[in-house]
Formats: sequence, structure tokens, C-alpha cells
Amino acid sequence: MTAHEFDLLDRTWSDITPPAARRMLVAAAAAFAGRGYHATTTRDIAAQAGMSPAAVYIHYRSKEDLLFQISRIGHTASLDVLTSAATSAATPATTPAAGSAASLTSPEPDPAARMAAAVSAFASWHAEHHTTARVVQYELNALTPEHFAEVVVLRRRIEDTVRRMIEDGVAAGVFHVLDARGATLAVLSLCIDVARWYQPGGRRSPADIGALYADLVLRMLGT
Amino acid sequence: MTAHEFDLLDRTWSDITPPAARRMLVAAAAAFAGRGYHATTTRDIAAQAGMSPAAVYIHYRSKEDLLFQISRIGHTASLDVLTSAATSAATPATTPAAGSAASLTSPEPDPAARMAAAVSAFASWHAEHHTTARVVQYELNALTPEHFAEVVVLRRRIEDTVRRMIEDGVAAGVFHVLDARGATLAVLSLCIDVARWYQPGGRRSPADIGALYADLVLRMLGT
Repeated sequence: MTAHEFDLLDRTWSDITPPAARRMLVAAAAAFAGRGYHATTTRDIAAQAGMSPAAVYIHYRSKEDLLFQISRIGHTASLDVLTSAATSAATPATTPAAGSAASLTSPEPDPAARMAAAVSAFASWHAEHHTTARVVQYELNALTPEHFAEVVVLRRRIEDTVRRMIEDGVAAGVFHVLDARGATLAVLSLCIDVARWYQPGGRRSPADIGALYADLVLRMLGT
Repeated sequence: MTAHEFDLLDRTWSDITPPAARRMLVAAAAAFAGRGYHATTTRDIAAQAGMSPAAVYIHYRSKEDLLFQISRIGHTASLDVLTSAATSAATPATTPAAGSAASLTSPEPDPAARMAAAVSAFASWHAEHHTTARVVQYELNALTPEHFAEVVVLRRRIEDTVRRMIEDGVAAGVFHVLDARGATLAVLSLCIDVARWYQPGGRRSPADIGALYADLVLRMLGT
């Protein structure tokens, strides 16, 4: 992992305090992405974080608890990116003057603009945070059944958000889709798989990928 | 891994002889998919195959050699599926009578039918062979540089096959695509990611997924 990649990974976890707990999450995500969850020991993680093995247990119950925190926070972050992009696309950029008629009626959300914004943000997130996203997506089976169940709730929310956007677009006559559930699966799959193939410094930036995928998804939905 | 899944995995490698070499590849693919390459030892693989650790080295130079064979054969198989589906869709089902004018001119290939057949076959393959495909896609970094270079040649061939199909469709006025390279990336990514989320016995069979994706890809290509 290059210094730049490590910086990016550190930014993913910038909200985590204290710094020691954050350093451990960053070290764990890098190790799980690099050699896999099962090949990584808490000793490896502590060494990478520049701490003693015992220090890990001050902040996390176990190696699996580290994976769960990465998975929980990673899923929550990608859900937030998806919903806030969709919400801001549905709201006009300027607030109408107070007291005007327009301020009383909510603007008609444009399903295509909303979907484009959501896909662009979700795909870019999976490029920008590819190391975290790989751990989140490929190590689900290593979670305990209880932790897995918690993560599934977040995954369903991500799925429901996209499916509802598709169904709204179909209801508004903007999208033409026979199988909304199948289209939801494909849209999410396309964006998530960015984490597998994306390489920093490659031909396309995260923003380029977002723009390309927004266009392809709108075509897929028959706009 | 269920007995059914193990059977499926065994079928992926049915061409490999002698049977002992096949048993080891099946055991290695199952172990790499389950716990990751780095967490698997040749001892684990031998035990799973019901053989002595020394027996592994009769057929394979190393654990990495097992991974390379899985990767090489897996990439070759998915490339074959892609090209043979595209080729058979472009050829009429019945041969014209010998000596007739039609036998002298090759039939005009239909770019949309070819693409639909190729995507359907390639996506189904990634569902049917999801265990192998996961190893093939997620453990690339564990290959030696020499083996990685060999596998990259196969990956480029897969990419070129799809890109040429898209470019042919654009030239024929059937597809409407601004960025053929970007569309190629998305088509392959969509199909490959099936290996991540597919679960045997789920809502959609491999054939269902193939049909859904063929339709979505044709829309994406602006037919």
C-alpha cells in the first residue's frame, strides 16, 4: 500500500476517536484487504498500527470486532453517500424567497437527476474507498451471525433506497423497467464492483467513473 | 460448502487429469474461496483432498502453482464461454444446401444477438462457477509477477472480445455508445460481480441472471 493509499484509507476513518482506535481500524482494513481476514492476526494489526498487541483489546473485543466496525461504518458511510446525493439532487439549489408561493410546495423531484446523482456518488465512493469496500464486501462470511444480521439490515436499506428510486421513476413514467428488483441488483452490483477493479492513478478518476456509470444506468433504466 | 456446491466445483475442473490432480485443484479452489489464499496451507489442501501433503508436490510445484492453474484455467474457460456464445449467435443454426448461393456468403452477424448471447453466457458462467470465479478475481495479487503477466494476457483477450463486439455494433449503427472502452468495462464488471453476490438456491437461477443481464446490457448500449 502506497503512502497516498494509506492517507485515503485514513480519511475513510477520520471520524473515529480516539486516534489509537482509528489507527487500529486503518491498520486492520489495510491488512484484511491485503492478505485477507483469516490470514491476519491481531498481532499483525498492532504492529502495523505501531502499538502493542494488548493495546488492541483496549479498543476492540477481538479481531472479528475490528472487522465488524469496518463493515458497519463502511456500510453506513456508503448508505449516507447514496441517500444524501439522492436528496440533494431532489432539492433546488436556491431557497425561494420567504413567503413566496414556491416555498410552500415542495419541488417535484426529478427521478432521473436523483438516480444520476445517487449512482455517481455511490460508484465514486467505491473507487475512492476501494480498500475499505473490498473488506466490507469480501469478508462478510467472517462476521459472527449476530454481526452479520446487523450488517444485513444496512444492506437492505441500501437496496431499498435504490429500488424505491427506480419504482418512483417508473411511476412517474421516466424509467421503463420490467423487473425493478433485477435492475436494483444490477445498479448496485455495477457500483460495488468498482472496488474490485479500481486502481488509483489509472485511466479514470473516481469522478469520471461516477459520470460514466450515471449515464449507463440511466440508459439501463430506459430513460 | 454443501455437497451440491462441491459437485459444481468438481465439474468446473472435470477436464483435469489424473483424478488426483483434479481433486487437489477442487480442494484448493474451495479453500482459497473459503478462507483466502494466504490463510490456506498446502497441508489444508492435501487434507481436504484426502491425500498426504507430499502428494501435492507430485502434481504442483507450490501453493502458488495451484492458484495459477485455477486462475489460468478459470480465465480460459470464461473466455471460451464468451467467444463460443458470440460465435454461435452469429452463425445460422442450419447449414445452407451445398452449392447454393447462400453457402458462398457468410451470414451478416447481428451485433445485438451476438452481444446478448455473449453476456448471457458470461454472466451465467460467473453464477454457476462462482467459487472458482471468486478465487480467480480476488486473489490476482497473490500470483507471482510472471504468472500474473500470463493471466493479464487472458484478461486482455476477454476485454478485447467485448470491446470489438461493441465497436462492431456501433459501426453497424445498432449500438449507440460514446465511450466503447467505458461500456466494455461496465459490461464485464456487471457479469464478473455475479460471482460475489450469487447464492445457489436463491431467487434467480444462472440462466435467469443471464437473461436479465443480456436485456440490461443491450439497453446500456443504446439499442
